[in-house]
Amino acid sequence: MSESDANVPAAVTGSVRRSRDVPVLVERAREGDPRAVARLITLVESGDETVPSIAAALAPFAGQAQVVGLTGSPGVGKSTTTNELVRALRARGHRVGVLAIDPSSPFTGGAILGDRVRMQDHATDPGVYIRSMSSRGHLGGLSAATPQAVRVLEGAGCDVVLVETVGVGQAEVEVASLADTTLVLLAPGMGDAIQAVKAGILEIADIFVVNKADRDGADATVRDIQGMIALGERGPGQWRPQVVRAVATRAEGIDDIAAAIDKHRGWLVEHDELRRRREARAAAEIEAIALGVLRARIGSLRDGTHLPALAAEVAAGATDPYAAADALLAQLAR
Amino acid sequence: MSESDANVPAAVTGSVRRSRDVPVLVERAREGDPRAVARLITLVESGDETVPSIAAALAPFAGQAQVVGLTGSPGVGKSTTTNELVRALRARGHRVGVLAIDPSSPFTGGAILGDRVRMQDHATDPGVYIRSMSSRGHLGGLSAATPQAVRVLEGAGCDVVLVETVGVGQAEVEVASLADTTLVLLAPGMGDAIQAVKAGILEIADIFVVNKADRDGADATVRDIQGMIALGERGPGQWRPQVVRAVATRAEGIDDIAAAIDKHRGWLVEHDELRRRREARAAAEIEAIALGVLRARIGSLRDGTHLPALAAEVAAGATDPYAAADALLAQLAR
Repeated sequence: MSESDANVPAAVTGSVRRSRDVPVLVERAREGDPRAVARLITLVESGDETVPSIAAALAPFAGQAQVVGLTGSPGVGKSTTTNELVRALRARGHRVGVLAIDPSSPFTGGAILGDRVRMQDHATDPGVYIRSMSSRGHLGGLSAATPQAVRVLEGAGCDVVLVETVGVGQAEVEVASLADTTLVLLAPGMGDAIQAVKAGILEIADIFVVNKADRDGADATVRDIQGMIALGERGPGQWRPQVVRAVATRAEGIDDIAAAIDKHRGWLVEHDELRRRREARAAAEIEAIALGVLRARIGSLRDGTHLPALAAEVAAGATDPYAAADALLAQLAR
Repeated sequence: MSESDANVPAAVTGSVRRSRDVPVLVERAREGDPRAVARLITLVESGDETVPSIAAALAPFAGQAQVVGLTGSPGVGKSTTTNELVRALRARGHRVGVLAIDPSSPFTGGAILGDRVRMQDHATDPGVYIRSMSSRGHLGGLSAATPQAVRVLEGAGCDVVLVETVGVGQAEVEVASLADTTLVLLAPGMGDAIQAVKAGILEIADIFVVNKADRDGADATVRDIQGMIALGERGPGQWRPQVVRAVATRAEGIDDIAAAIDKHRGWLVEHDELRRRREARAAAEIEAIALGVLRARIGSLRDGTHLPALAAEVAAGATDPYAAADALLAQLAR
């Protein structure tokens, strides 16, 4: 393997072929070795056979960081905002991890490089870990890998983990919902308010950031969002989403965003909502892993003769796919 | 329920609450009753408990229609091309079904109405069934429902079923790959050629249609595609994708598209590829259904106390999600 193999550098797979190497790597990540952190995330992303042992080694560090999700349509300024937020959090003395999730839709891919370049500001800061994760269409895989990657960063001592996603689909909404606090970024004149309603994103947003607030239409966007929040049904014990204005390119409003995150964090703890959210997240993660195991078991039947024979019957009209699925599951249970 | 409930009209759910009504509905669909066809597709789309009995009733009609997929980025002219293709197929005396799949990405939704309006040309033609299907983010659900909807149209006597998808993501590529013959529509100056390579769409395209071929850059687009096809590795027994020019708004090139589809169909039959593709499709469908059943079984554990207890352990760092998933699966196997 060559160094140019971007996803799985030779150094990674070479050194952690066996799960007995995992404790060493975790120990090094705990000591703050950025290469060990990068390797662990690569392994977690690869979904290979070392992942369960990594998860076991990292289990004790679960929940040590505040996880903040940032989502929004392309062009609203997510990377710039993340970059400035990292700066603000560093100024407070926090260790910060950033996971930039790119769904790499085959027709929209290519944002990763841009993000990385814009985040070069922090490239030499030992208190910041920045990592792009790509799904290349394996959205289920991304949902499964992201919580593990968060745990790697927690193990490495991050106080805050920012998970940046492109808000263009249900899967990204799901990834954003893995966070303790979810920021939805909007920009004036993009019609985002209406789209946010369509996407049900109003329900996942804890904080709305109207970025590019120096542009025409910013007031209207803020009004639209506040109107939607006012219309939203909310019990007395529920969080009322905050709206914050920012001009990330000039670092304006960043402290307001940080203050809103702190306020939400306080609310979560006060209402025992942090525990509830994290348990719900863990439940979803366990289910996703269990489903992946079952999917692999079904996949193992694909190479046998049973599924091809059933498929031939369905294609010929001799049976229907539901009856065939029952037969397949009966085979699985043996 | 009111008539304005667009997805599930009262008449539908009211009349087919029980699977014993399914044979009557299938019989009426067989006789060409468009309301029965629409009801069956609605039921199939809903994924309710009548679906297996519908599938069983429709099994004998599997494979009776030629299934043609059309995909491409928004704005390339898919609906106009579909509309003209329907006209050309009708002129040859075919009965035609159209499934317009809209993934309704929360940030891009809203194409359905436009499609329907443009296809009004055929609204009063009893030899044409047109149906929009929406996924609202349930992409797995769409992949599962589409083959069943195709079978409904086959049962209703369609000779050709056109499945139109928005080529914006992996899921749409998957739906397009359900077809016997897949058309990929491009338009000049959209940079689609390069994106098609990224998406691996070159591998699923049997026919490329360069629509809007009267525009500047059409020659360059055709050249790009032909260059990519020339570069593609292909064995002696493999189909070489065709490139067809069209101006769908003026009905130009439509006969060429129809001829290319016929040619591909002949090739499929000659090389026993039609059977192979349909069996592969049936296998994927059986797997998807089996996985859905397993997912439902896991879901049934969610309401119990087992999963919440495991989730609490994971959230507290007492165990890791992989170990918890093993415990969950052990519970499932009981």
